[in-house]
Amino acid sequence: MEFLFDYISSYAYIAWTQIHGLAKRFGLQVDPIPILFAGLLNSTGQKGPAEVPSERAYIIKDLLRTSHALDIPFAIPPSHPFNPLAALRVTCAVSDLKQKCKLTDHLFQAVWGQGLDISDPDVLISQINQAGFEVEPLLAQSRSEEVKSRLKNNTDRALVQGVFGVPTIFVKGEMFWGYESFQNLERFLAGKDHVDPALAEKWANIKPSATRR
Amino acid sequence: MEFLFDYISSYAYIAWTQIHGLAKRFGLQVDPIPILFAGLLNSTGQKGPAEVPSERAYIIKDLLRTSHALDIPFAIPPSHPFNPLAALRVTCAVSDLKQKCKLTDHLFQAVWGQGLDISDPDVLISQINQAGFEVEPLLAQSRSEEVKSRLKNNTDRALVQGVFGVPTIFVKGEMFWGYESFQNLERFLAGKDHVDPALAEKWANIKPSATRR
Repeated sequence: MEFLFDYISSYAYIAWTQIHGLAKRFGLQVDPIPILFAGLLNSTGQKGPAEVPSERAYIIKDLLRTSHALDIPFAIPPSHPFNPLAALRVTCAVSDLKQKCKLTDHLFQAVWGQGLDISDPDVLISQINQAGFEVEPLLAQSRSEEVKSRLKNNTDRALVQGVFGVPTIFVKGEMFWGYESFQNLERFLAGKDHVDPALAEKWANIKPSATRR
Repeated sequence: MEFLFDYISSYAYIAWTQIHGLAKRFGLQVDPIPILFAGLLNSTGQKGPAEVPSERAYIIKDLLRTSHALDIPFAIPPSHPFNPLAALRVTCAVSDLKQKCKLTDHLFQAVWGQGLDISDPDVLISQINQAGFEVEPLLAQSRSEEVKSRLKNNTDRALVQGVFGVPTIFVKGEMFWGYESFQNLERFLAGKDHVDPALAEKWANIKPSATRR
C-alpha cells in the first residue's frame, strides 16, 4: 500500500505509527511516498489545519490526546510550518523500500517524536547519519534534478489521483485519507467494504443550489 | 453538552446520531445549537469539504462506509450545498430543549436519512408538521428579527469560542470537533484526559519558519 505523506503533517506522523500494524495484518507492504503538502493546498485552494488560527489552537489538544491514547511519543518542533523540502527530497533519493521506510520512520520520529527541526541542514545531516545512511552521497543525490523531479512528480500524480490531504493511502485501487479513515480502510481490506455505487454516482451528479458569497 | 451544527453537514448528521448515546453514558443532556457553517468558512477563509472537488469526490465513500458501519440510514439530498437558513432558523425558534432536539432530529433525518430538500419551503413545512409542530406559529417566529439574530449570535459566539467547523461539541469547558473526536471526548468525560499544558503552550508560541506562497 502506498502511504503519501509530508513530514510537516503531525497527523501523517500519527498515521505512520499505525499503518505498519494494519498492513501486517493483511500481509501488505507499506511504500512511503513523499509529497509536498503545500503543493496540494496551492492547487486546491484549501488551507492547512495549522493555517487557520482557531483550528491550529484546537489540533494540539487532539494530537496530544490521540498520541497518548495510542501510546506513541509526541513532541513539538521548534517552528511550524517549517520547510520540509530537503527532508522530502532526501527520502525520495532512497530507492530500496526497506531503507526508505527506515529513513521515513527516522525523520518522522525526529520531528514529531523528538521535536527536532529537520529543516535545519545540520539536524537533517545528523538524522540521516543516525539512521545509518552515508550522508554525502545521499545528500548529493537528493539535490539532483532527477530526485527533485521525483518529489514534484509524486505531488503532481497525487493531485491527478484526487489527493487533497496527507496522509493519503492507496491500496487495491482505493484511496483513504487520514488516520480517521483507518477503521474503514481495515474493513475494506477485510473484504467488508460497503459503498453503494448508485449513491456515489448520485452524489457526483447533484448540483449546488446555494453557494457562498 | 452543546452540539453546534448545520444541517448542511453530512458529518454533523453522523455525529448527531451518535452523540445521544455518548451523552447518556455520562448522564448529560444534548443541547443542539444551530449555526451557519458558511459563516464560519467566510470568517476563517477555509473551504468546506464539499467545496474542494477532489475532497467532495472522496467524502461520499467515507460517508457511505461510516454510516454503514454505524448502521444508520444515509441518503443524498437533491442538491448540495443547499441553503440551510430557513431550517436553522426554524430550529432556533424552538426554545424547549426536548422539542428542539425532536425537530433537529427530524430535519437531520429528512436531509441525510431520507435525502429530502429542506431548503424547499414546502418540504420544510411538511417536515415541521410531521415532527408534530404547529406550522404557522413556528414559521412566523422563525422569520422574526429575534430568531434571525439568535442564529447570527450563535454563529458569532461560536467564532469567538474558536469554532472552525461542524459539528463542534462544548462540554465542561472543552471543545471537540467532529465525530472523529468522539473517542477523545469519551475519554475526557471519563476523567481520562491527557493534555500536557506545557506542550499546548509550546505549540501556541512557536512561529512558522516557512509559509506558502
